[in-house]
Amino acid sequence: MDMRLLVGRNVKRIRTARGLTQEELAERSGFSQQYLSDLERGRRNPTIVSLWELAQALGATPVDLITPDDHAD
Amino acid sequence: MDMRLLVGRNVKRIRTARGLTQEELAERSGFSQQYLSDLERGRRNPTIVSLWELAQALGATPVDLITPDDHAD
Repeated sequence: MDMRLLVGRNVKRIRTARGLTQEELAERSGFSQQYLSDLERGRRNPTIVSLWELAQALGATPVDLITPDDHAD
Repeated sequence: MDMRLLVGRNVKRIRTARGLTQEELAERSGFSQQYLSDLERGRRNPTIVSLWELAQALGATPVDLITPDDHAD
């Protein structure tokens, strides 16, 4: 299972479900919009502390961000 | 919640439940015994890919390693 792709899909799914743009999530999380764009495309390898910060900014939990979705093999 | 401390507690709990020493887990995971010792004391900030590798070596899932335990605030 590619964790980078999985986290990217989960962040994008939750962000859009919350009606947030990447810019708004960038503002809330302190990460740059470019970082978030890369992350959502599975091109980043965040640490567990970054995972927690992202979850907080999304109003989700770190577990939410690494829970396998239908695409995860 | 301090993710480093949480992951450290979870890795130690699962490792000992599996009857593995740090050396044996080091051999299985490819991480050094020193890294694992630091990690279990909450002094490492692993990436999500490292989390997956640790979970594989423990026969657990990444979610298992970041699921809050009784100590997590």
